[in-house]
Amino acid sequence: MLERRSQVVLGLDPDPMALWPEALAEGPASPGGSDVAERTAMAVAVHCRAAIEAAGGACVAVKLQLACFERLGGPGWSMLAEVVAYARARGLLTIADGKRGDVPVTARAYAQGLLGDTPGPFGPVPGLGADAVTLNPLLGVDSLEPFVARAVGEGAGCFVLVRTSNPGAAELQDASVGGSPLHERLARLVHEAGEQATGACGLSSVGVVAGATKPGLLARLRELAPRAIFLMPGVGAQGGRVEELGPAFAPHPAGGLVTASRSIVDAHRERGGHPAGAAAAAADELREAAWALSRAAG
Amino acid sequence: MLERRSQVVLGLDPDPMALWPEALAEGPASPGGSDVAERTAMAVAVHCRAAIEAAGGACVAVKLQLACFERLGGPGWSMLAEVVAYARARGLLTIADGKRGDVPVTARAYAQGLLGDTPGPFGPVPGLGADAVTLNPLLGVDSLEPFVARAVGEGAGCFVLVRTSNPGAAELQDASVGGSPLHERLARLVHEAGEQATGACGLSSVGVVAGATKPGLLARLRELAPRAIFLMPGVGAQGGRVEELGPAFAPHPAGGLVTASRSIVDAHRERGGHPAGAAAAAADELREAAWALSRAAG
Repeated sequence: MLERRSQVVLGLDPDPMALWPEALAEGPASPGGSDVAERTAMAVAVHCRAAIEAAGGACVAVKLQLACFERLGGPGWSMLAEVVAYARARGLLTIADGKRGDVPVTARAYAQGLLGDTPGPFGPVPGLGADAVTLNPLLGVDSLEPFVARAVGEGAGCFVLVRTSNPGAAELQDASVGGSPLHERLARLVHEAGEQATGACGLSSVGVVAGATKPGLLARLRELAPRAIFLMPGVGAQGGRVEELGPAFAPHPAGGLVTASRSIVDAHRERGGHPAGAAAAAADELREAAWALSRAAG
Repeated sequence: MLERRSQVVLGLDPDPMALWPEALAEGPASPGGSDVAERTAMAVAVHCRAAIEAAGGACVAVKLQLACFERLGGPGWSMLAEVVAYARARGLLTIADGKRGDVPVTARAYAQGLLGDTPGPFGPVPGLGADAVTLNPLLGVDSLEPFVARAVGEGAGCFVLVRTSNPGAAELQDASVGGSPLHERLARLVHEAGEQATGACGLSSVGVVAGATKPGLLARLRELAPRAIFLMPGVGAQGGRVEELGPAFAPHPAGGLVTASRSIVDAHRERGGHPAGAAAAAADELREAAWALSRAAG
């Protein structure tokens, strides 16, 4: 992150109806040559590779929205694995954004699939090979532990939902639990889950998801989870402003990651020009703004 | 459900290291013929089909644990779709147990993939075609709405986590929010989300996941969500006892669904004999116990 001088995470949540033109141009020539799911998944992969090629240089990581691949079935998951490998080969970290959360035996299965591999009768089945995952903590600490254990073993990370960026998040995440909002309780839980997983740099393998749409909460969350990396979605299309995210970077320039999806990949819709050029410019502007902020805060 | 006289849901969470013998016998003869993920996914599908064949007659639905297919990558998702189709062809409802929960735009993508289809440049990409999904409500009502809308449109259902069956669930789900436990607040949220989605039988498309490991909570949850179908995992291996689940069935014999996974599929480990015979016997015993209970409670 420091050598790239970037805290920007390129969010990829491909909508098959809004792909870059090259994704459609490079599809198989014959419509009958493969089925609709395969053709669509291949076009989505071309789109994602083009976006990484254009904007990846200004970013430290890509965040892949699993729903957008999962909805394309088996071919979607195969292309997801290809995009992960493509991003990693370009020096980018990969975050599998699936917000998974389940009972321990199932959490172990998810962790095998996203961060590790799965033992089987024909040998281990390789997983997605992501560097990090996003997790939903509603089931409690025992649902996070298999991921934390796997992340420590693989040198990977987890980001746990603490305060999400959607309008409806307030309903439960801001509800008062024992005198303080639920999101504060979740931040404490993240801090505790990460205590045994803190690296030499002072940052933990267990991070926080905190929406950039609620920047006023960041200072308090930072107090409660001083070693967590904050993954902050919601900049741009959802209304979050990078200039307000300073508190996340307070302990360390690497303490915050700013995720932008549509505001990079769809930048050409506002700026005009080719999608690649617009995405590169948007990502670089965000990189500069976040970097300047983190130098000031750190 | 009534014509099958069953409230039993066959849980399929296949562990590649614990498949029925026929799953390995029917695999491709040559180890080099396909890659490890494909061979493993095919074996998992044979196992699931055999379990459905053996125990499905005593069940009303199958619950597919998405993690166990997802961890096998693209081939795993392709086989998941095949198992869903197989179960539906045998008259069983299918529940995609993924506990998904995300911001509205992403929730829509998950709903397309699990319950509907996805528009794309080459035509709509068919989704999994499940009859129901499980959802995590931490992100609030706006994260559930795309699923509820899709479920109503497709004649499908949603089951929302209210009180899960794992030991760590108490930490957050039993925490006091405004004087009552969080799980009660979640039950109210389910009731409200389902008010516009109640069918002629008086049951809503939006149901509750309530672990059979905490039967003492069921009567209160039933008060708070009178029209919800209760999906109750945790019978058997996790320690839940079907005899204690009566309050869930109070409004209607179809008001409760009892999920059993390992206690059916792995029944031969305790009972001896062939897995298929043991699974059929275990499923039928559970069917009889639940049916008797629902007649007494209803």
